[in-house]
Amino acid sequence: MNAHSIPEYCQTLGVQARAASSLMARASTASRNQCLRALARLLRESTDALQLDNHKDLERATAAGLSAPMVDRLRLTPKVLDTVAQGCEQLAAMPDAIGEIVGMRQQPSGIRVGQMRVPIGVFAMVFESRPNVTIEAASLAIKSGNACILRGGSEAIESNKALALLVQQALTEAGLPADGVQLVQTTDRAVVGELITMPAYVDMVIPRGGKGLIERISAGAKVPVLKHLDGNCHVYVDDPCDLAMAATVADNAKTQKYSPCNASESLLVARGVAAQFLPQIAAVYAAKGVEMRVCADSRRAIGALPGAQLVDATEQDWFTEYLAPIISIKVVDGLDAAIAHINHYGSHHTDAIITRDHMHAQRFLREVDSASVMVNTSTRFADGFEYGLGAEIGISTDKFHARGPVGIDGLTSLKYVVLGNGEVRL
Amino acid sequence: MNAHSIPEYCQTLGVQARAASSLMARASTASRNQCLRALARLLRESTDALQLDNHKDLERATAAGLSAPMVDRLRLTPKVLDTVAQGCEQLAAMPDAIGEIVGMRQQPSGIRVGQMRVPIGVFAMVFESRPNVTIEAASLAIKSGNACILRGGSEAIESNKALALLVQQALTEAGLPADGVQLVQTTDRAVVGELITMPAYVDMVIPRGGKGLIERISAGAKVPVLKHLDGNCHVYVDDPCDLAMAATVADNAKTQKYSPCNASESLLVARGVAAQFLPQIAAVYAAKGVEMRVCADSRRAIGALPGAQLVDATEQDWFTEYLAPIISIKVVDGLDAAIAHINHYGSHHTDAIITRDHMHAQRFLREVDSASVMVNTSTRFADGFEYGLGAEIGISTDKFHARGPVGIDGLTSLKYVVLGNGEVRL
Repeated sequence: MNAHSIPEYCQTLGVQARAASSLMARASTASRNQCLRALARLLRESTDALQLDNHKDLERATAAGLSAPMVDRLRLTPKVLDTVAQGCEQLAAMPDAIGEIVGMRQQPSGIRVGQMRVPIGVFAMVFESRPNVTIEAASLAIKSGNACILRGGSEAIESNKALALLVQQALTEAGLPADGVQLVQTTDRAVVGELITMPAYVDMVIPRGGKGLIERISAGAKVPVLKHLDGNCHVYVDDPCDLAMAATVADNAKTQKYSPCNASESLLVARGVAAQFLPQIAAVYAAKGVEMRVCADSRRAIGALPGAQLVDATEQDWFTEYLAPIISIKVVDGLDAAIAHINHYGSHHTDAIITRDHMHAQRFLREVDSASVMVNTSTRFADGFEYGLGAEIGISTDKFHARGPVGIDGLTSLKYVVLGNGEVRL
Repeated sequence: MNAHSIPEYCQTLGVQARAASSLMARASTASRNQCLRALARLLRESTDALQLDNHKDLERATAAGLSAPMVDRLRLTPKVLDTVAQGCEQLAAMPDAIGEIVGMRQQPSGIRVGQMRVPIGVFAMVFESRPNVTIEAASLAIKSGNACILRGGSEAIESNKALALLVQQALTEAGLPADGVQLVQTTDRAVVGELITMPAYVDMVIPRGGKGLIERISAGAKVPVLKHLDGNCHVYVDDPCDLAMAATVADNAKTQKYSPCNASESLLVARGVAAQFLPQIAAVYAAKGVEMRVCADSRRAIGALPGAQLVDATEQDWFTEYLAPIISIKVVDGLDAAIAHINHYGSHHTDAIITRDHMHAQRFLREVDSASVMVNTSTRFADGFEYGLGAEIGISTDKFHARGPVGIDGLTSLKYVVLGNGEVRL
C-alpha cells in the first residue's frame, strides 16, 4: 500500500466500522454471546494453525534481534490461546449491560425519564506486541455491541491477521457484520495518525503500550482518548495499624511482580510506627534484593541492615514509577501528610492505606484523588479481573468518562429515555 | 492587563483553583449546602445593588448598538435574580451525590470493590452573554464539590464581577475557599486559549454559546470538552398512532419556542398516516406562520392549503437546525426508514416517536442514536430541570463521559474503592 492510499484506506475502514456499529448495537444479546462462544471454539480448533502463523512472527522477531522477553510476549502458546478462549466464554456468560435502563422516574410534568446503557459506537485500539490483545479487544467489542478497528504491532502482524480472520468468521456465524471487528492490514505507521483524527468514524481511541505511544496519540488525537499513563502507586502504613498485615501487604504490593502499573513504587510510614515497622519491611526488601531510596528518617529507623541497598532519595524519586526492584520510602507525620504527599507526587492511579483507624480509612478513601483507593489490601488488586469486571480493555488514569480499570461499562454511555402519554411543554 | 501577563494570570488562576479544589472536594455536605443558601440570601439582599452594576453593562451594550433581544439577555431583573436564588435553594435541598458508593461487592479474593462518586476537580466554563449563568455554574460547582474558573462574555463583565463577589462572600461565610469559584477579571480573549490548554489545572472545559465559540474551543482544547453542538431534533409520527396526540406534540415540539436546541426541526410521517395527518398539522403550522420545507409526497398529502408557506425541501434541509419558524417535513415508508433518516441526517440530540406500537417504541428507543430518545412526548422536554437533574450545566451531544442534559453527575466521576482485611495478590 503506498502512502497516498493510506487516508483512503482508513476512510474505508471508518465507513465500514460506522455501518457495522449500528448492526452491532441492535444485535440481540443471544447473537453476541453466540459469537463469543463460536470465537472460543474456533480458537481452540485452530490452535495448531495459529501457531504456524505465530511462528512467522517469532522467526522474524528473532532474526531482527528482539530480546528474549520481547519475543516471549509475541508467543501464542496453546496455554495463551486457551486463556483467551476462556475469556471469550466468560464474557459470553456475563449478563448483558447493553439496553439496561436505570433511574426511570416520573417527573412533575408526567413524563418518565431514565437512562439506557448503549454502546459508544466505534472504538479504535492501537496496541503493541502481544497478539492476544486482538482477541481481548474484539471480544469486548462484541459483548458491548461496539464496532472496533484494531491496529496491532507490526511485529505480530501475521498472528493478528490469523486471529482477526477467526473473529470475522465467528461474527458471520452469529449473523453479525464481519466489519464489526476490523484489523488494520498494513504496518504503515501513518494509519495511526489517520485513525485518531476521524471523529466522524471513530468515537474513542484506546492506546495500549509504552508511554511514548500514549503521549504521541494523546497529543495528536481529535477524538477522545482512554489512556493510561503512569502508575506511581503508594502504600501508606498508618498509626495505628496491624504491623504484620502492613508488612505482608507492603511486600506483596512491591514484590509480587515488578512490571505491572499497579505495583507499589513508594512506601509512606507514619512517624509513630516507623521505628518498629521499617526494620521489619526493610529486612523483607533486602532479602529480595529490592533497592530502597530512603529519606533521612527512614534511614535512621532502618539502621544497620546487612545486605540492604539503601540510597538517599532525591526529590525526583517521589515522582518515579520504577517498574523495577526499587522502592522509595518516606516517614510522614501522619494521615494529612500522607494524603498531601500522595496527591502531590502520585500519579492518581492506585494507593492504599494500612490502618486500624476507621476515621483515617474514611478520609483516605475520600481525599486521596486516585482512580483506586484501598484500605488494608495490596495495590496489585487494581485490575479488571480482580474487580469483577470480567475483562479489561485498559486502565484509565483520566477522570473524564472512566477512571481505573475499564471493562464493558467504559465502552458504553448512557442515553436518556423519555416515556410520555402526549405530554407537551407548557 | 498586558498580553504578556495573560499566561501568568491564567497560571495563577489555575494554581488557586487546583488548591481550592481539594478543599471543595473534602468539604462537608452541610457546608456546601450552607454556602448555597447564603448565596441565595445574598442575591436577594443585593438585588438593588446588582441592578446598578447590571445597568452599566446595559448602557454599554445599548451604546454599542446591540440588538434589543441581545440587551434583554443581559438584563438582571428582580425576577431573574429571584429565579437564580431559588435555583441555589433547590440545589441546597437536593441530596448530595458526592461520596455516594455504588456497587460494593465482594470478590473471590476476599476484597470488596465498589465505586465512589467524586468531583472532577476543576472545570472551566466559557460562556457568552447571560450573566445569570455565572450563578448557575457557581452553584453547580459548589454543590458538586468542584472548583471552577468562569469566563463570561465581555458585554456582561460588570454584572459578572458583582455576582462573583457575592459567590465568594457566600463561600467564605460557609468556611469554603473563596478561590473555589473564580471569575476571570479581564475581557482579553487570549485567556480562553490559555484556560483550555492547562491540563495540569483544568480537568474539563464547558463552552456555552454560539456554534463558533464551541468549535473554536473544541479545536484548540488540550483538556476534555463537554460540548453541545447542533440540535437537529425530529418528531416521527408512526403508523399506527394517536393522530390527535401526534398533532399536539408535533405542534409543541416546533412552535412552543423556536430558539431552543431541543425544538424540533424536522417532522417525519409514516406513509400509512400521511394522507390523514399531514393536512391537520400543516394547518396548525400555517396558522402559526411556520414555513414548511416539504418532500414531494408531503406536498401531495397537504394539498391546497390557503396561507401555507410550502417550499420544496433540498437535501440540505434534512441536515438543518433552523432555530426559526421553519420545519422540514418528509414522508417515510415506516419505522426503519425513520430511524435510518434520523441517524443519518440528525445531530444525535433529541428525537421522538409518536406511536401506539409497543415494538416500534422499543426499537426506536434502542436504535435511534441520540442523547435523548422519546416516546409520545415533546422534544422540548430535553433539559435538566424537566429531567429532574435539579439544574443543568449544559447539554452534551458527545457520547463520551456524559450525553444529553448534564447535571451534577456530569461534574463528577467514579473512583474505585477497595476494602480488604490484609488480602494480597497471589
